[in-house]
Amino acid sequence: MGKGRVEAFTDGVVAIIITIMVLELKVPHGEDLSALVPLWPVFLCYVLSFINVGIYWNNLHNMFHTVQRVDGGVLWANLNLLFWLSLMPVTTAFMGENHFAPVPVAVYGADLALSAVAFNILTITLHRLHGSDSAFARALGGDRKGKISLAFYLAAIPLTFISQWIGVAIYVLVATVWLVPDTRFARVIEK
Amino acid sequence: MGKGRVEAFTDGVVAIIITIMVLELKVPHGEDLSALVPLWPVFLCYVLSFINVGIYWNNLHNMFHTVQRVDGGVLWANLNLLFWLSLMPVTTAFMGENHFAPVPVAVYGADLALSAVAFNILTITLHRLHGSDSAFARALGGDRKGKISLAFYLAAIPLTFISQWIGVAIYVLVATVWLVPDTRFARVIEK
Amino acid sequence: MGKGRVEAFTDGVVAIIITIMVLELKVPHGEDLSALVPLWPVFLCYVLSFINVGIYWNNLHNMFHTVQRVDGGVLWANLNLLFWLSLMPVTTAFMGENHFAPVPVAVYGADLALSAVAFNILTITLHRLHGSDSAFARALGGDRKGKISLAFYLAAIPLTFISQWIGVAIYVLVATVWLVPDTRFARVIEK
Amino acid sequence: MGKGRVEAFTDGVVAIIITIMVLELKVPHGEDLSALVPLWPVFLCYVLSFINVGIYWNNLHNMFHTVQRVDGGVLWANLNLLFWLSLMPVTTAFMGENHFAPVPVAVYGADLALSAVAFNILTITLHRLHGSDSAFARALGGDRKGKISLAFYLAAIPLTFISQWIGVAIYVLVATVWLVPDTRFARVIEK
Repeated sequence: MGKGRVEAFTDGVVAIIITIMVLELKVPHGEDLSALVPLWPVFLCYVLSFINVGIYWNNLHNMFHTVQRVDGGVLWANLNLLFWLSLMPVTTAFMGENHFAPVPVAVYGADLALSAVAFNILTITLHRLHGSDSAFARALGGDRKGKISLAFYLAAIPLTFISQWIGVAIYVLVATVWLVPDTRFARVIEK
Repeated sequence: MGKGRVEAFTDGVVAIIITIMVLELKVPHGEDLSALVPLWPVFLCYVLSFINVGIYWNNLHNMFHTVQRVDGGVLWANLNLLFWLSLMPVTTAFMGENHFAPVPVAVYGADLALSAVAFNILTITLHRLHGSDSAFARALGGDRKGKISLAFYLAAIPLTFISQWIGVAIYVLVATVWLVPDTRFARVIEK
Repeated sequence: MGKGRVEAFTDGVVAIIITIMVLELKVPHGEDLSALVPLWPVFLCYVLSFINVGIYWNNLHNMFHTVQRVDGGVLWANLNLLFWLSLMPVTTAFMGENHFAPVPVAVYGADLALSAVAFNILTITLHRLHGSDSAFARALGGDRKGKISLAFYLAAIPLTFISQWIGVAIYVLVATVWLVPDTRFARVIEK
Repeated sequence: MGKGRVEAFTDGVVAIIITIMVLELKVPHGEDLSALVPLWPVFLCYVLSFINVGIYWNNLHNMFHTVQRVDGGVLWANLNLLFWLSLMPVTTAFMGENHFAPVPVAVYGADLALSAVAFNILTITLHRLHGSDSAFARALGGDRKGKISLAFYLAAIPLTFISQWIGVAIYVLVATVWLVPDTRFARVIEK
């Protein structure tokens, strides 16, 4: 079974998720600059989620580059990831509209953690299909970065109830880590 | 006429359907966990519909894999299926927002049944185009699973008025059946 | 310049237009069958527009099949067509929510007429690029069907103010004509 | 790393942006022609933004035509551009619903300016990857048109507070300039 259509479908769903998030940025009422002020928390959440979904697309892009074939298990592991990512517009708006209140920040973290678990399941499914000495397995390695990210998300959820800013800081930190050395990861694959 | 663009268009429409369903998950008002409670029925319906649309995408993916060519009749049979699937976001929300009341549950079942009929018409159209000894016809077989699913959906609609939970149970059951041995079906095609 | 990306972009936009129209089908309030009654005009308009956009996708699909190359003029002629099609969700909802009142029916007809004009401009642009003895020009022929459709749409707009049902009947008639012998047109191209 | 999926993802996101803008064109209340009157500023903004996003798609299409490969930096430079374009539906509606009041017109200009900066960063990233004597670098040239457009947008923002019509006139002017000789640019690439 070719990987082409899975890539195309995944690109489609991720493109829609990353774009419909903007529909939660309600058009401000009023024509002064002050009308934009209440939008800041929603806007910041949008930026964070845009980057997070962008990171997933990047990782899926790089990962599928080394994938040879897919089966039904991979299709469903992929759909499972897309499910948790599809909740991102709602959890983002929940966090933004409540101005980073603890529960919404924890819910957002839970969505990030469940997406990370789903990504991990997807890599396991692909690993089983390709074997340990495949290009895929070599490129993935121990996926230490993925596992550490998941640990950070899981830690962020309870810490949010001490101060939500710890949670937000962890989300920003993890996103920054993925953003920065991503180029290096891509080059490893290229070799 | 190449099948490539039909696949691409179908992937696009299904990707949009599966993703805009999340727009019916309204952002909860309030910043406590209790704000999430009224969302549960809508969320469960979303999960069920995400899986159902995912099953259709999977089946379309597998089916078009063995398709050699398409004609105008196939394009319209495919658009007919996409039409009934496009109603899934509305019927899902109707069922969820009314907390599984009998009429909305029956309407949801009617949408599932009409989608199953449309899928059946699509397979007949493709069968006629490819002939009985094509790879497509062999892979499809008698499509017993498709026909039994349709029978279950049709039975669920009146049973809903005895208890809506019978209807919901049938929808969950059929989805589970498609979900589980899907891998086997994919392997049959691969041979 | 390859036609591949223009096809992909067009498929994407048309897939989104045909799917977001369903967002105008507001989830009915109430859990009885009577809650569905006020939805009928909106639903019928949705069916009509789904078919109309489906016809355009079909025609674009068939037409681009014989196209060899595109240039900047074609890109903009194509975007012009997509613009008028993109208004279809709004004009459809305007007609449905006002229960086929004369002005909304006329506005819907104007959108259909302007889409037909835009399609005509697109064929002219492609004709100029490929020359009169190209496969494209032969497949297009005199495009009598396209021109007659436009004439019917233009006639429907004033007739709507005598009775809106004349307008609606004309839209249904033209859609039916395109729907039925479409297979024949596809076969002409196949030769 | 192949450019195919980046193109596909970009096409998907741009297709969604250009199409969901229409969701801000709220269905008019009332069934008379007068119901359409208050929609005019929103409609004109929609036309302007449709053309602006269309210009970006055109330019991305032409640019990626000469691109040989992409890396992580290009992916993020591209996502950065898509981010600013994704705000276009909100800034467009903000300008339209406030009937071209100065602040919304300036905000719209800021979005255009930031998109132009992002496009510029993308060309720099691609230039660095391909080198100065690549087909890409030759096709891009000094990108004088892109830089002048940015200068105009930056000038429009303060001028809006003298009269918003200066701002709007500048946006229309820049869009017209890109629209008209676009064919010429495409032909330069074709050689």
